[in-house]
Amino acid sequence: MNDMVKSELVRPGAGVAELAEALIACPSVTPATGLVFDCLEEMLVPLGFAIHRAVVGEAPDGPVENLFAIRTGPEGSRHFAYAGHVDVVPPGEGWSSAPFAPERRGELLYGRGAVDMKGSVAAFIAALRDIPREAGTISLIITGDEEGAATFGTVKIIEHMREAGINPDLILVGEPTSVNRLGDMIKVGRRGSVNMWIEVEGQQGHVAYPHLADNPITRLVAMLSELKAIKLDEGTDWFQPSNLEVTDIACGNPATNVIPQKASARISIRFNDLHTGESLSKLVREIGAKHGASVRPVISGEAFLTPPGEFSAIVVDAIRAETGLDTEISTSGGTSDARFLKALAPVIEFGLCNATMHKKDEAVAIPDLEALSRIYARIAIAGLKRA
Amino acid sequence: MNDMVKSELVRPGAGVAELAEALIACPSVTPATGLVFDCLEEMLVPLGFAIHRAVVGEAPDGPVENLFAIRTGPEGSRHFAYAGHVDVVPPGEGWSSAPFAPERRGELLYGRGAVDMKGSVAAFIAALRDIPREAGTISLIITGDEEGAATFGTVKIIEHMREAGINPDLILVGEPTSVNRLGDMIKVGRRGSVNMWIEVEGQQGHVAYPHLADNPITRLVAMLSELKAIKLDEGTDWFQPSNLEVTDIACGNPATNVIPQKASARISIRFNDLHTGESLSKLVREIGAKHGASVRPVISGEAFLTPPGEFSAIVVDAIRAETGLDTEISTSGGTSDARFLKALAPVIEFGLCNATMHKKDEAVAIPDLEALSRIYARIAIAGLKRA
Ligand SMILES: [Zn+2]
Ligand SMILES: [Zn+2]
Repeated sequence: MNDMVKSELVRPGAGVAELAEALIACPSVTPATGLVFDCLEEMLVPLGFAIHRAVVGEAPDGPVENLFAIRTGPEGSRHFAYAGHVDVVPPGEGWSSAPFAPERRGELLYGRGAVDMKGSVAAFIAALRDIPREAGTISLIITGDEEGAATFGTVKIIEHMREAGINPDLILVGEPTSVNRLGDMIKVGRRGSVNMWIEVEGQQGHVAYPHLADNPITRLVAMLSELKAIKLDEGTDWFQPSNLEVTDIACGNPATNVIPQKASARISIRFNDLHTGESLSKLVREIGAKHGASVRPVISGEAFLTPPGEFSAIVVDAIRAETGLDTEISTSGGTSDARFLKALAPVIEFGLCNATMHKKDEAVAIPDLEALSRIYARIAIAGLKRA
Repeated sequence: MNDMVKSELVRPGAGVAELAEALIACPSVTPATGLVFDCLEEMLVPLGFAIHRAVVGEAPDGPVENLFAIRTGPEGSRHFAYAGHVDVVPPGEGWSSAPFAPERRGELLYGRGAVDMKGSVAAFIAALRDIPREAGTISLIITGDEEGAATFGTVKIIEHMREAGINPDLILVGEPTSVNRLGDMIKVGRRGSVNMWIEVEGQQGHVAYPHLADNPITRLVAMLSELKAIKLDEGTDWFQPSNLEVTDIACGNPATNVIPQKASARISIRFNDLHTGESLSKLVREIGAKHGASVRPVISGEAFLTPPGEFSAIVVDAIRAETGLDTEISTSGGTSDARFLKALAPVIEFGLCNATMHKKDEAVAIPDLEALSRIYARIAIAGLKRA
């Protein structure tokens, strides 16, 4: 809790666009701390939420600020959680207006974070006015470090929730999943991600006497060829095929007549739920052993899937009711904090159109903000009903 | 010509070991200039040689000093040339005695250049006393830049000889070709050498969206695999099989989630006389075109062969007469200035044992110096006779 007197950050009764503007006006390049959380707190306290704020972690990946807000429903009610972040990527150059001074032009609201994802956070907070306390328990899981290392972000809020015995039944992540029109795509899973550092040690020598040397590049190339020839899988009903890319190769041998001592490479595998970071590490290590290569894997996140069913039907129905669109249920794209949240409850991601995210002149259509707010209210209310 | 008065560098009538000591005592890390050439000149002038010295070239590969000495035989006589160098590789650390202070311990004479190849130069100069002027024309082609870039070394002496209309009939290069015992190996050819810089330009992208990118490492690895799978040849009667090594790979992509824009590699091919630098460049370019790679070849030297016959028989017979050994006729090992000299006349390489060349405590057995001098005399006299 913060004991400061705060009253000017947001107007009582502000609409969704004003809430988004208030959040955008608090500069919060990752990792975000302070003001943007004060602003959030000021929005949520009047709506009956208890706020838990914490600054955690040390350099280089910290400190990081997180916020957990909860409004408890009647005894035995279900618990619906919204998860998001208020940090943003650096604005970069070339904006038409100041990135942290929200500006409306026609239907569009410009500012860093407009779609990724202060607009979504604003839409959920606006939706709360339409969700009666009696409908059930609502919580917000908001980190200041999703765009950065994420070491002390959502994972730390999850720790706090576990310690406090707080277990949501469903989690909606508000990342911008829409592509061309609001509601055209939701994500029910994400691929896992693992990077591996490969090193081959050979025997240095002169190129004129290759039989006295052992060229590590020859072995590395053979290993990489073998890795690229593997078909990891053919995809599943919900996932595209897993994919392996070699993202770096290195040797650093300046001498044209010398067979080098060492060579290295780095690979990145994006994988579906037929694999785990561990199973892929074992596979690559076995192939590496044949070529005398050492392999050091770092698992960024496991694949997860909330198999389409009750939860996705709620989201699809809510989107159709407001927009008339038939949503595509997808598992494509990069990783998100959903990789951590899946440990707590079924997770689905749905938010604004992502066309301008991480770009200059990031902007959201104000009608989309309003529609998203209504869709979020429908999802939360339906999600809080017992099946 | 150098007009300085020089009289203390070498004792008149010095034996082969003393001549070697006098040369070793003139420090001459590549590129060599000055003193060591003064010393050579002082040895050769009393033997009736006309001396041509020249300092040529600019940085970074120059300036370089070279010496051409010639003693003309009777009208119409044959011309036998000895070729060598008086520059040496840097001594490095860990010597038992100062590298440029020649020291005898038992039968061994220590010092940088003892075998590569001031000892050989001394042996040829000592041999000159046993080769009468009437036997024919003798010349010495001595560069100060064989161990370095060689841009302004032997090639420049060859230019001078061509301009002066000087055409040897046979050339003996005194590089250390013996392995375990003096005379156990001579070289009648060397493989050619070409380095090629390979670059693949792809399309940068995010590893999560490989279909929107084009990974240059994937194409480079496929190209290198294909290159390594090629059997260039199976060797010839006189050459081992040509060999291709990948000597460097590079990309320099620090981002684990990014498919890079560019990747590169460098290869080195040592090839026999079934190929030329140009034919190999064409081959690799064709394979590169399939993988979208650009290839920039730099040919260091073409393969050459003095087919075993009259000249090699002379050398083999001279070695057998002095040592009783049956010489192995080889084309193995790295490149030498013979790659340039072959343009003038048939070239054979024969010199001291190479076990300590380029190493600390480089040393020559004094009896080997004496035997080599006698063998050189036999080779020159036989080589000057009309067939
Ligand atoms: Zn985001
Ligand atoms: Zn040498």
